[in-house]
Amino acid sequence: MQREKVIIKPYLTTISLDPENQGTPIHFSDDWITPEPLFFLRNHYPYPPITPESFKLTVSGEVEEPGYFNYEQLLQMPSKTIVLPLECSGNKRKEFQPPTFGTQWDDGAISQGVWTGVPLRDLLQFSGLKTSACDIVFEGHDSGKIVGLEGDHPFARSIPIDVALHPDTLIAYALNDKPITYKHGYPLRLIVPKWYAMASVKWLKKITILDEPFDGPYQALDYHYFPYEDSDEDKVPVTTMKVNTIIQQPLPQSSLDPGIHLIYGIAWTGEGIIDKVDISFDKGASWLKTKLRQDQSETYSWTVWSYIWDVNKKGKYTVMVRATDTTGREQPAHVTWNRLGYGYNGISTINLQIV
Amino acid sequence: MQREKVIIKPYLTTISLDPENQGTPIHFSDDWITPEPLFFLRNHYPYPPITPESFKLTVSGEVEEPGYFNYEQLLQMPSKTIVLPLECSGNKRKEFQPPTFGTQWDDGAISQGVWTGVPLRDLLQFSGLKTSACDIVFEGHDSGKIVGLEGDHPFARSIPIDVALHPDTLIAYALNDKPITYKHGYPLRLIVPKWYAMASVKWLKKITILDEPFDGPYQALDYHYFPYEDSDEDKVPVTTMKVNTIIQQPLPQSSLDPGIHLIYGIAWTGEGIIDKVDISFDKGASWLKTKLRQDQSETYSWTVWSYIWDVNKKGKYTVMVRATDTTGREQPAHVTWNRLGYGYNGISTINLQIV
Repeated sequence: MQREKVIIKPYLTTISLDPENQGTPIHFSDDWITPEPLFFLRNHYPYPPITPESFKLTVSGEVEEPGYFNYEQLLQMPSKTIVLPLECSGNKRKEFQPPTFGTQWDDGAISQGVWTGVPLRDLLQFSGLKTSACDIVFEGHDSGKIVGLEGDHPFARSIPIDVALHPDTLIAYALNDKPITYKHGYPLRLIVPKWYAMASVKWLKKITILDEPFDGPYQALDYHYFPYEDSDEDKVPVTTMKVNTIIQQPLPQSSLDPGIHLIYGIAWTGEGIIDKVDISFDKGASWLKTKLRQDQSETYSWTVWSYIWDVNKKGKYTVMVRATDTTGREQPAHVTWNRLGYGYNGISTINLQIV
Repeated sequence: MQREKVIIKPYLTTISLDPENQGTPIHFSDDWITPEPLFFLRNHYPYPPITPESFKLTVSGEVEEPGYFNYEQLLQMPSKTIVLPLECSGNKRKEFQPPTFGTQWDDGAISQGVWTGVPLRDLLQFSGLKTSACDIVFEGHDSGKIVGLEGDHPFARSIPIDVALHPDTLIAYALNDKPITYKHGYPLRLIVPKWYAMASVKWLKKITILDEPFDGPYQALDYHYFPYEDSDEDKVPVTTMKVNTIIQQPLPQSSLDPGIHLIYGIAWTGEGIIDKVDISFDKGASWLKTKLRQDQSETYSWTVWSYIWDVNKKGKYTVMVRATDTTGREQPAHVTWNRLGYGYNGISTINLQIV
């Protein structure tokens, strides 16, 4: 047995098993595209069975021709392929102080995939969307109990009509150039670029076009920013991803030798694109530019940033990283707490020591 | 594809890959014996190559007959099998406030295994231990650089003569009834019951009996409780495990329905055995007994504790769990901070809500 044959690899980070929630080992996966086995898993329920019904996608409600599309039909329609990060809105929930209830994600609820499918717009046009259409509901095959509510509920989410008609909103059937794996929504999954991933409904069962806003529990009760502990006042729905970063390496609380170290990570946003990623070694008093790697051919993909740090003085350092997007949004020094712990995007900060 | 065929399993939690440090998913592994694939990995260096030398165990220093034992010889000597938890002294390091430098373990740096091998005492007696013997050094085949020090250093640790002569201190060759796997120290590993796992040297290369205390870097510089940030005064060596617990389920920050919930976990200690594990729902004002499952035939194994919680009132709860061992040690409400972040054993505390 030789040293060369030793396999050292990262694993999904187990957050819960019932339902299954496992995070991408984002500090150890520096691929542009997250390999499918390391793609984060986020479920509200047990996995739904696959039946012949799984291969039919029903369209009903405010359309001229309600009916369904077969999986095989969809495979034959003109397709589109898009690279984009999916991020759970609960990513980094562990950072909130005071702590919030909910799945305690660290920073692994984000992965970047290559998604292929049929633009939803084509399906809606084919079905004859009525002018009365207001909100489009996507229901998955997964369902079950919700703590604190009576009865069973399917996982169902809606998006506004303009988002549904965006040419890059897909009924996807492939992830990373293969049929979507079962745990990621096989056979069909909605993909909504820029939005937090609760919008990208897995195991897609039916599309219902409403003439009024959808009021299902995952739309009306969950997935809001609730600013207050004991009141639902001033709640704001969770929609697009906030501008955000992860410092992938070095790891927090590392001890390093004096010399040259590469500091790197990812940045992403759900509005515009990443404009700059700055780094500070003096607790935010001054900021230096990092080097960005973006793919101009990809509208939505994340940005890889890096900084070559030449450090000789021994001691303790605080490293802060802050992204700004082209809409002018930047990561805040202080994140507004919200009761369900969504959308944490405070300036990424680690402490290091040079010894 | 049916629901029944879906495999949902926990993985090792990746803490670092260079060197490899991965934790047991302790909240999702409620086996009495940790399966080898989920046994935590803690390394200081890259894995050492296996060569013919790996199968020779040298004994030198203060003995009448220096020489070596072959792996095959050891397999033929009278053996002993012991069930015990190995815990890294950095387990729960993430809990320290302010944070300390070092590998940021959560609570996964503990696993319970079945170890089989030859009592070290037999080897030392066979070699003719001299009365001048003071400290016994165990050197592994793994070596490399230490941040902040010049040159290469093997991983080497010592134990006092009385610990070395204890009949349960083993030169182990089997873990969970199979040859120790490569990453866990194949072919030979020292196993020191009750001590934090840095004492249980992997890939054992040689045993050196000194007539004075060992001063290698892992003995004299590292693995001490340093009470002060800027001074080495009053340092105390890390030896046996502190009394400690983990609340395996429910998970922290869970939302639960009113009704009956099982709260359970493990408790362990490096002195005596676990005497009681108490639980509090009123922030420590009053304590209730949990039910203990211990194996009287096993001197060292961990204790499984559980409590059936019948809760009907909605609201937020703090659950605290505190173990006491038969030497009277109990988990403290406030842990004394130490610079390298060793031995965290504060009262285990989680917050839950009933909704």
